[in-house]
Amino acid sequence: MTEDASARSPALFGQQLQVITAGVGGFPEALRRQEVPVVDLQWQPPAEGDRARGGILRDVALDPELQQRIDDANRETLERIQQSTPKVHGVAPAGEAMDLPSRTILHSGPPISWQRMCGPQRRAVLGAIRFEDWADDDQQAEELVLQGEVNLAPNHQFRAVGPMTGVISPSMPVLMARNETFGNWAYSTFNEGRGDTLWFGIGQPATLERLRWIRDCLGPAVGEALRLHGPFEVFDIVAQGLQMGDECHARHAASTPLWIKRFAPFLLDAGIEPAQVASILRFADGNSHFFLNFTMVAVKAVMDAAHGIPYSTVVTAMARNGVDFMIRVGGLGDKWVVAPVSPMDEAVYFTGFSVDDAAGDIGDSAIIETCGLGGMAIAAAPTVAPFVGGTVAHQAAAVAKLQTICLGAYERFRLPTLDGDSPPLGIDLRRVVESRTVPFITTGVLHETSSTVGQIGTGVARAPVAVFDGALEVLANSWGKLSDGNPVANTVEIEPAEGSPHDPA
Amino acid sequence: MTEDASARSPALFGQQLQVITAGVGGFPEALRRQEVPVVDLQWQPPAEGDRARGGILRDVALDPELQQRIDDANRETLERIQQSTPKVHGVAPAGEAMDLPSRTILHSGPPISWQRMCGPQRRAVLGAIRFEDWADDDQQAEELVLQGEVNLAPNHQFRAVGPMTGVISPSMPVLMARNETFGNWAYSTFNEGRGDTLWFGIGQPATLERLRWIRDCLGPAVGEALRLHGPFEVFDIVAQGLQMGDECHARHAASTPLWIKRFAPFLLDAGIEPAQVASILRFADGNSHFFLNFTMVAVKAVMDAAHGIPYSTVVTAMARNGVDFMIRVGGLGDKWVVAPVSPMDEAVYFTGFSVDDAAGDIGDSAIIETCGLGGMAIAAAPTVAPFVGGTVAHQAAAVAKLQTICLGAYERFRLPTLDGDSPPLGIDLRRVVESRTVPFITTGVLHETSSTVGQIGTGVARAPVAVFDGALEVLANSWGKLSDGNPVANTVEIEPAEGSPHDPA
Repeated sequence: MTEDASARSPALFGQQLQVITAGVGGFPEALRRQEVPVVDLQWQPPAEGDRARGGILRDVALDPELQQRIDDANRETLERIQQSTPKVHGVAPAGEAMDLPSRTILHSGPPISWQRMCGPQRRAVLGAIRFEDWADDDQQAEELVLQGEVNLAPNHQFRAVGPMTGVISPSMPVLMARNETFGNWAYSTFNEGRGDTLWFGIGQPATLERLRWIRDCLGPAVGEALRLHGPFEVFDIVAQGLQMGDECHARHAASTPLWIKRFAPFLLDAGIEPAQVASILRFADGNSHFFLNFTMVAVKAVMDAAHGIPYSTVVTAMARNGVDFMIRVGGLGDKWVVAPVSPMDEAVYFTGFSVDDAAGDIGDSAIIETCGLGGMAIAAAPTVAPFVGGTVAHQAAAVAKLQTICLGAYERFRLPTLDGDSPPLGIDLRRVVESRTVPFITTGVLHETSSTVGQIGTGVARAPVAVFDGALEVLANSWGKLSDGNPVANTVEIEPAEGSPHDPA
Repeated sequence: MTEDASARSPALFGQQLQVITAGVGGFPEALRRQEVPVVDLQWQPPAEGDRARGGILRDVALDPELQQRIDDANRETLERIQQSTPKVHGVAPAGEAMDLPSRTILHSGPPISWQRMCGPQRRAVLGAIRFEDWADDDQQAEELVLQGEVNLAPNHQFRAVGPMTGVISPSMPVLMARNETFGNWAYSTFNEGRGDTLWFGIGQPATLERLRWIRDCLGPAVGEALRLHGPFEVFDIVAQGLQMGDECHARHAASTPLWIKRFAPFLLDAGIEPAQVASILRFADGNSHFFLNFTMVAVKAVMDAAHGIPYSTVVTAMARNGVDFMIRVGGLGDKWVVAPVSPMDEAVYFTGFSVDDAAGDIGDSAIIETCGLGGMAIAAAPTVAPFVGGTVAHQAAAVAKLQTICLGAYERFRLPTLDGDSPPLGIDLRRVVESRTVPFITTGVLHETSSTVGQIGTGVARAPVAVFDGALEVLANSWGKLSDGNPVANTVEIEPAEGSPHDPA
C-alpha cells in the first residue's frame, strides 16, 4: 500500500477487511454486498436488554455476600436432589393416603376457578364427581362445583402430581412414594392408558368403567405385590429406561416392560387370581405410559425434599393447568409464580388436528424436567427426535442448550447417544432470565372442546419466560434488590397440607 | 518464475508442491521433512495383492455374463431375506421336532471329531449325555462317544442353531420357527441363562437340574402360551429391541422384557400354575439373553430360505465350534468352507481372566450377523460401544465399514443412533476378499479348561478371512475361473436332514 492510497481513505479500508458485527442489522448486509467477510455475532444484551431484570442480575452479581448465599443454597439444592432415593411403598385410596378433606377433587397445575378452567380439565373434574357417585350427570356435578359443595384444589397442595388434566378424587388408588433420604412422601394416581380416559379430558361411561377396574383390581393388586416386593426404588428402572430409548416423560416404552418383568412374579406370589393378573399385564402391555406415574411420583418426592432452601434460585417444580403455568423456586417458600401457558405451536399434531383444536399446555408432569428427565434427557430417546428437529444431532444440540441454563448434571442418569454424559440438572432461573432460553417439556396435547377425542398431538411445550422473570423479581424483592420495591409478578401461595397419615413428620 | 529458475530444476519443483503418494513408505516422509504437504493415500491392491484371488476377481469382473448372473442371484438372495416372515409356532422335544436319529447329540459350528473338540463343547456334550440318562458320569459318557454309541452332528445338519457350545439333545424342548413366506422350518433350544449352564460349557448337577426344569416346566408352558397366542412374529420384537438398545446378539435386555410383556398373560390364560408362571417370569427376568434363541431361530429360518441360489456370493450362515469357523455361501449348495477360528484377542475379559484362558470363538449365533443384526447393528446398542472403541461415533464408523462389504440394508430394521438408517445386509464374499474387511460378531468368551467358570468375557470376534478366500476359490472353480483348477480351500458337505415332521416339504 502506498502513502497515496492511505491518504485517499483510512488505512483500515485499504486492507483485506475481516469484520465481526454485533446487533446492528443493516451493517453486515451492506458489507456482504461488497463481498467483505462478516461474522455476525449472535449476541443479545442480557435479559433482552430489559433494564429492571438486567439491573437485578447486575446488582446480585455485584453483591459478593448475596452471590455466595445463592451459590451455597443452589449447591445444597442439587446435592439434595442427587442424594434422594425415592421408593414407592404402597397403594391406598387417595382420600386416605393424602388425608383429603371431604368432597375434594384435585387437578394439575396452578389453582384455578371453575370459570377459567380449560375444557379437558372441566370434563375430567365432572367425570371424577360422577365416578365418586356424588352426582348422576354432568349438570348435577357442575352445580355441586358452582355451589361450592365440591372443592377444587391443586395436586401440589397435597404433595401429589397428576399427568395432563391430573384429576384425583378420594377413592382413586394412589402410589405412595417416600424419599428415603429425607423422609417426605409424595402421591400420584395410576396411569389410565389410551382412549377414553380422564387424564385426556374424557369422562364417558368407558372412562368410569376403567377407573372402577383401576380402583377395584389394579390398585389393590399392585399394593399386594409391593407388600411382598418391598419398597420399590423407581430410579432403578428410570436409569435403565434411559439406556433403552426412554426420556421418561413422553416415552416409557422400555420402563413399562421393565416394571412388568419385575412385578409380574410378585402379583402371582400375592395370590391374585390369574385372570386378574392377566388383565393387569395386558393393560400395562397396551399402555406404554404405564410407568409415567411412577416416574412422576418419584420425582415429586425428590423435588419436594430439594425445595425450601433460602436463597436458592433453582426451579423445584413446574406445573400447568391448560391456562396457567406455574413454577416453584427453591428460595421462594410456598410462593409459586404464575403466568399464561405458551401456545402449543411446536407440537406434532395427529392427522386432522391442529393447534386451533388444542387445549393449552397441561399437567403436573413438567416437574420431570426439573429432575434431569424428559426434555433434559431427550437425547436418550431417538424416536422422539422429531420433537426437536428430527435427528440425534438436533437432540444433542437441544440438551447442550439446556445445559447452559442448568447448574449441574444428574449423575445417576446417563444418556447413551451422548456417550454416557449425564442430563442437565438444576434449572437456575437467573440463567433463564439472562439468556431467554427456557426449559422445554416433552408432552401430549389434548382437544379443547371435544368430549370424546382426547389426545390430538405430541411434542414439546416451552415454559413461558414470564414465570422466570416474575420469580426473579419476587426473589430480588425479598433480598432488597428490587429498586421500586414493587414486584408485578403474579404469585400464589400453596401451603402443602400437613398430617398425611403416611408422612412420618 | 523466470526462465533461469526453470533451467536450474524441472518447472514442477519451482511451484508450491502438493503431493499425493500411494504405497511407497519413505517418499511421503522425505517430503514432509521438507514441509511439502502430502496426502498419503491408504490404498492397498485388491486382495492384498494376492495374484490368484486378485485374478479371480478380475476374471469375474471381465466376464459380463457371469457378472450379470451373480448380480441377479445376489439380488434374489437379498429379496428373499427381506421378504421372509419368521414365526415361532410351537415347542416340542428336539428328537421329535427335528426327527433326530437315536442317540444323537448336536453341537454348534462345523462338524468336528471328539478329539479336536474344544473344552467347553466337550463338557457340554458329556453333560447332555448325562441329562439324557445314557450315562451316569462323564467317563461313561465319553466312552459312548469314543465307541460311536453316541453320534455327534452339527446343528445346521438338522436345520437347528444353538448359542455358544450349542449342544442339543433329543429331550430338550426346542422352539420351532417357520418362515411363512417360504415354508421352511428352523429350530433352537431355550436359552439357559447365566451361571452353571451347558451353553457356557458347564455340566454340573445344577446345570442338569435347570435343564430338567426347562424340559418339564418352561418348554411345555411356552408351548401352551404359543398355542393360545398363535404364531409369534419374532422380528416384531427384534425391530422394537433395536429401538431400545439391543443389537440383538450380545444384548437382548429390551427384547426379553418385551417378550415377557407379550407372553405373560398367555401363560396365565393357558392355566399354567401361578407358581410355575412366576418361576418362568423370574427366570426370564434374571436372564437378559432369554430372547437370544428366539432371534437365532428366526434368523436361521430366514437365511435357510435365502440360501441355495446358484451364483450367489452372499454369505448365508457363519458358525463356529471353538476350533473351526465355517461359512455357507448362497451359490455353494451344501458345501461349507472351513478355516481355523480367529484368536479372541479383541474381547473385554472379566477380572482375573485373559485371552490365555479363552476357548476359541464358538456358537451358531454368528448367523445373526448375516441378517443385519449383532455386529451389523452394533450402533443400536450404545452400552456395547466398548466393543469397538467406546463411543457412539466408533459404532457408527464400524457400521459404515461393514456397509462396504454388504450389498444392501435390512429395511425393516432401523438404527436409532444413526437417525433411522437400516443396518447392512448381505455380506458379499467378493467384497470381503477384495477389501480384507471381515464381518465381526458380538459374542461371549468361554473358559477353555475350567468345568465351573463358564463365561469369562465379551466383545467382538472377527471372521477369519481364509473362509472367504476359500469360498471364492471354490465358487470360481465351479464357474471355470480357477486357473489351476485345484481349489485348496477346506470344505465340508452338510446335507440338511429331510423329513422333519414339521417341515411341510
